[in-house]
Amino acid sequence: MTRAQAAALDARDPLAPCRARFALPEGGAIYLDGNSLGMLPRATPERLRTVVEGEWGQGLIGSWTSAGWMDLPVRVAARIAPLIGAEPHEVMVADSTSVNLFKLAAAAVKARRPRRVILSEPGNFPTDLYVLQELAALIPGLELRTVAADEIEGALGEEVALLLLTHVHYRTGAVHDMARLSAAARRAGAISLWDLSHSAGALDLDLRGAGADLAVGCGYKYLNGGPGAPSFLYVAERLQAELSNPVAGWMGHAAPFAFEDGYRPCGSMRRWLAGTPPILGLAALEEGVRTFEGVSMAEVRAKSMRLSELFLDEVEARLPGVFARACPRDPARRGSQVSLAHPDGYAIVQALIAEGVTGDFREPDVLRFGFAPLYTRYVDVIDAVDRLAEVMAQGRWREPAFALRKVVT
Amino acid sequence: MTRAQAAALDARDPLAPCRARFALPEGGAIYLDGNSLGMLPRATPERLRTVVEGEWGQGLIGSWTSAGWMDLPVRVAARIAPLIGAEPHEVMVADSTSVNLFKLAAAAVKARRPRRVILSEPGNFPTDLYVLQELAALIPGLELRTVAADEIEGALGEEVALLLLTHVHYRTGAVHDMARLSAAARRAGAISLWDLSHSAGALDLDLRGAGADLAVGCGYKYLNGGPGAPSFLYVAERLQAELSNPVAGWMGHAAPFAFEDGYRPCGSMRRWLAGTPPILGLAALEEGVRTFEGVSMAEVRAKSMRLSELFLDEVEARLPGVFARACPRDPARRGSQVSLAHPDGYAIVQALIAEGVTGDFREPDVLRFGFAPLYTRYVDVIDAVDRLAEVMAQGRWREPAFALRKVVT
Repeated sequence: MTRAQAAALDARDPLAPCRARFALPEGGAIYLDGNSLGMLPRATPERLRTVVEGEWGQGLIGSWTSAGWMDLPVRVAARIAPLIGAEPHEVMVADSTSVNLFKLAAAAVKARRPRRVILSEPGNFPTDLYVLQELAALIPGLELRTVAADEIEGALGEEVALLLLTHVHYRTGAVHDMARLSAAARRAGAISLWDLSHSAGALDLDLRGAGADLAVGCGYKYLNGGPGAPSFLYVAERLQAELSNPVAGWMGHAAPFAFEDGYRPCGSMRRWLAGTPPILGLAALEEGVRTFEGVSMAEVRAKSMRLSELFLDEVEARLPGVFARACPRDPARRGSQVSLAHPDGYAIVQALIAEGVTGDFREPDVLRFGFAPLYTRYVDVIDAVDRLAEVMAQGRWREPAFALRKVVT
Repeated sequence: MTRAQAAALDARDPLAPCRARFALPEGGAIYLDGNSLGMLPRATPERLRTVVEGEWGQGLIGSWTSAGWMDLPVRVAARIAPLIGAEPHEVMVADSTSVNLFKLAAAAVKARRPRRVILSEPGNFPTDLYVLQELAALIPGLELRTVAADEIEGALGEEVALLLLTHVHYRTGAVHDMARLSAAARRAGAISLWDLSHSAGALDLDLRGAGADLAVGCGYKYLNGGPGAPSFLYVAERLQAELSNPVAGWMGHAAPFAFEDGYRPCGSMRRWLAGTPPILGLAALEEGVRTFEGVSMAEVRAKSMRLSELFLDEVEARLPGVFARACPRDPARRGSQVSLAHPDGYAIVQALIAEGVTGDFREPDVLRFGFAPLYTRYVDVIDAVDRLAEVMAQGRWREPAFALRKVVT
């Protein structure tokens, strides 16, 4: 595809106006890492100024009521719900993704006693496995079992309390069939818990339609909530009365200001709050989620597939045999990313960043390029592959400075 | 004491210059609620602008290294350490106080198996009891036992794994003897865990000297980190190898970017991180803690006692018999607050807020006034008691508008 053809696609892209909702980095750099940290929404700095200088600085403690801080987690959750195919009363915003995984996994295991097995797959995003491994070490008798993706259904025996899977794999971008696996878990009497970190805000999710039981997701990737933004969690309505938060803080109590000694969980999703809500992070996340206002998630997903498909087509056409493909070829089975494998992947990513195209690297050899449909253009894809081709042709990635592995999220 | 005498105290107060480090609310309101939400440091808005518009907006994902985000929890922890009598390598900043309580309590219980009792006192800050109660419900055989303060030492039997106490009681301001109770717990083979939410930044803490094993504390009260700021936790050096984080996220792994399937906790306090650190909250907390730069905690504590003593003296002198004292009379046994009981406490606090003096109310009948030594002046204390006397004399608190209980933190 020529750049002019790509520009024509941009011109008739219904999502093109969304790009103006973001503060673009100066110098025209191309950012294909919104799957790691979403870009800054244009409205966020002013919102934070209001929260910090007005609500905190002037309103002080009174802002918990007068500025609506108490209800901020609920308001942000209600904005996230339509993006994931949930009802507002099934979502809450709190803590980090890791902590929310722990809360939901522990609650599910407790509810399904005496079942004693948690099922997941090897190579899942590490935090998911770490949370489960140490949860199993905390509760005597509990066991984490990992089986390959195609063995999951067969492994859903009567000992299994919980099936935890990541919907879109962080490294390969492979998409699990949420409806099929949720149904299999349910048939087996287990609870399904989905990590949506690489799905929410990029795929057209339908948690209710898919029959998912539980889910968690990330606020700082496609939802544009800023570095370390609070996370969201989902509990299907039918399970809400049965499950309660094992990390029981005062904010999840039915009457937090009664200061009772005994824990009585709130009847609503507020029970999944633990400590005092992080107001700065929540306000930034609200602005992040507001970048989706008026947007159809079906259009987001359609553009996401077209962007990644265009990138992969161009790489295969212009750099044949240079990279091994490390993601599914079928865009419907692929998240909003392209993963390429190369033994010198780390150095190539660094050299490409120096050329103004940001992707990222994942061990052991994966170059990962994410496509955030709200701000990534078709011309960005063409330009990015141009620069990748230049980097490979000139061998710039062989310079010693690019070989030195640093910590990159 | 006359207002002129109070002004003279302010004139020779070595901490008086610290007040300029804060953005004072307009209109000259008197804020005696820094024990609930600390005031906004003057440096915080600019710091957040830099983090949001520069580091996030321009630096994007690269800021995890180039802007030092990866080490921000460690840097803020190192700033908190001297305020609590700890070494920098014994402190970490992460999550909320509730979540940190859960992490440390669960780790302690796991390390002390087969001991099966957690000891605390009734009327403790509810979140502490809720966390313990639901932890006990999660782990079969574990039991939460609460006994009155003067029965704690006798109850430290050989079944006790953990003693959790709040150092300064949120409602009464009563201070526990940390050294004595930590030693008693240790003699009994139990681990001591101290909630410092109402101590850190107001009292002259010496965790190492007192032999405390574990502690958590709040970032948004006397540390001025903003609403819902991240919390800190302390693990005494001698226990660090023995205890590991049961909420095991990727950021606590020895090599977070190796993306290994198995959890290997980091050798340092980083093991107490779970998910991705909340950068906006951490940056605001760093500015909050920086308001203590160059300040002697002994002077902070000395002023804290003088302020609360002056308030109590004035109330007793000018409003004899109106309130029951709900805090210790000895300033050395009292935190940085005064608690007064009155059956119409809620309405009185509301009327007083309307007169420009912010304190808060705690069920069932306590008016609570906190004194943050960095920005509270002696004249503020005199003025506050003046207005309290006016409110009581005029009976303004009897107006119906003040009787309607609202949610107030």
